[in-house]
Amino acid sequence: MSTERALIDALRALATSPAARGLADDAAVLELGGERLVLTLDTLLEAVHFLPDDPPQDVAWKLVAVNASDLAAKGAQPLGCLYSHALGETRWDHAFLEGLGEACRHFALPLLGGDTVRMPEGAPRSFSLTALGRGPTATSVPSRTMARPGDAIWVSGTIGDSGLGLDLLLGKTQAPCGPEADWLKTRYRRPMPDTRLGPALAPLVHAMMDVSDGLMVDLSRLAEASGAGAQLALERVPLSNAYRAVAGHDLAARLKAATAGDDYTLLFTAPPTHSARIRTIANEHDTPLAKIGTITPTTGLTLHFEGAPMPLPERLGYEH
Amino acid sequence: MSTERALIDALRALATSPAARGLADDAAVLELGGERLVLTLDTLLEAVHFLPDDPPQDVAWKLVAVNASDLAAKGAQPLGCLYSHALGETRWDHAFLEGLGEACRHFALPLLGGDTVRMPEGAPRSFSLTALGRGPTATSVPSRTMARPGDAIWVSGTIGDSGLGLDLLLGKTQAPCGPEADWLKTRYRRPMPDTRLGPALAPLVHAMMDVSDGLMVDLSRLAEASGAGAQLALERVPLSNAYRAVAGHDLAARLKAATAGDDYTLLFTAPPTHSARIRTIANEHDTPLAKIGTITPTTGLTLHFEGAPMPLPERLGYEH
Repeated sequence: MSTERALIDALRALATSPAARGLADDAAVLELGGERLVLTLDTLLEAVHFLPDDPPQDVAWKLVAVNASDLAAKGAQPLGCLYSHALGETRWDHAFLEGLGEACRHFALPLLGGDTVRMPEGAPRSFSLTALGRGPTATSVPSRTMARPGDAIWVSGTIGDSGLGLDLLLGKTQAPCGPEADWLKTRYRRPMPDTRLGPALAPLVHAMMDVSDGLMVDLSRLAEASGAGAQLALERVPLSNAYRAVAGHDLAARLKAATAGDDYTLLFTAPPTHSARIRTIANEHDTPLAKIGTITPTTGLTLHFEGAPMPLPERLGYEH
Repeated sequence: MSTERALIDALRALATSPAARGLADDAAVLELGGERLVLTLDTLLEAVHFLPDDPPQDVAWKLVAVNASDLAAKGAQPLGCLYSHALGETRWDHAFLEGLGEACRHFALPLLGGDTVRMPEGAPRSFSLTALGRGPTATSVPSRTMARPGDAIWVSGTIGDSGLGLDLLLGKTQAPCGPEADWLKTRYRRPMPDTRLGPALAPLVHAMMDVSDGLMVDLSRLAEASGAGAQLALERVPLSNAYRAVAGHDLAARLKAATAGDDYTLLFTAPPTHSARIRTIANEHDTPLAKIGTITPTTGLTLHFEGAPMPLPERLGYEH
């Protein structure tokens, strides 16, 4: 067992309140005055969650977006946020605040409070943000644990764009300059979780989470948390036109997309009888929703490509 | 204007929601489902807010305590907390969690969620915690801004203990080993805000905040935020027996106490007609509450010692 794993287990042993959901979900859910308060806290650390030369406006955007994504996955409507700012170089800090203001407006997460600390010279920048949302009350707040065998597995948006954008930024993948490459890089720097989609889907889903570490690893976590398995049809993993133009859409390209991180789209399961209503929501929100597989009674993740079973890749996504 | 000041002003310009209280109070207050949610986020940074060789259990305790203190100052009952853990050395981290569990139980702030990040080698440890509380609904949630001329100024507990404890730990003050010195050091490492006292006082106060940066600087902030002034009677600043034993109780000792940080006691103002009820609360909670001055119509802080006016010291407390 890794030391990080052991520490997380020790943390879970402390988090005995039912509101904590065993620290195994994307967010905490606290009942208060007939409302359900959904709470999430994410930290971005330089060189781990963002590149040192990423524009500060984009770092701030990402800080708000990753938390907005967690709220969306719990069907919660954004209420506001608090954050801790590590003071550094003045020009960088002001550009960061410019992006923060933009993101708070975009994701309807007004800044409610926070703290500033002066970091010592040379220390990596780190920013923690706590976001609050109002969860559904007429239906349950979606968790990772409620997928049932026979459920269809769905994903919103397109997969792999952000990971490919990062590869382009790092020079790991080459592509001619052009709108496709620019679009993919922007997907890495400015994730666009859909905060209206989650609340619309919440009454129809059995389980929901956001895709942040890679479709395969996140799907295997959802299945495991539900005591079930998942069968994923790789040919159905939705790819953007830009992704196809740069990386293609063969099996290798699909495996790459489904193991890349930072998608910040929604992964959910629902009984097949809800498919028509889910497609209606996709149309209403002008967002693609793709049915990519099925929850199975047998545990574990299995892959198929055009009907044929495929071995699992060595790495399912980011495990941090 | 310092660069930190300019950044805080830029942050305030973003925080336009009334729930943010202009980022000028100890906490945000969000109305939700007929309840008032009180929210605070504080970050502790190694070598700034705690000493690198402080026991990890005590660092965790302080992280929870400083946030519990903000909740108490808003008359809020603790609901829970979320925090971000910077992973470092395994043994240190586990000892930290031991202290965290102890503090969460003591302050009735169950752990609801959080995040872990792996810090690079050599980076200073930093921990952010967001605490949530349920604010009073029958009366207003106390702010810093509502002190009125003629109000009596009160403070809970004793003042200067933690600052003197830090001086002893740093060797800046010498004292014979013994229970007094140990007690003062513990006051620095394990602040003990009274989370039941704040809610009990809330219906009686005009303004309330916690003393964290030094009694004088915090009182001058409260007065300024209220558009008023404050007259402080130094001989009434409550000193513990341990403080008196180590540092004395003359004018110099009192000035030192009233400009030291990390007290985490409550500073509040109330109309003189409430004095008897406030003394009853002090008895019920077995906590000293001392009347230390008066809110004045003229702005600015003025000092008296045994009836004679005194000049202000150069430094009123920590300005960070």
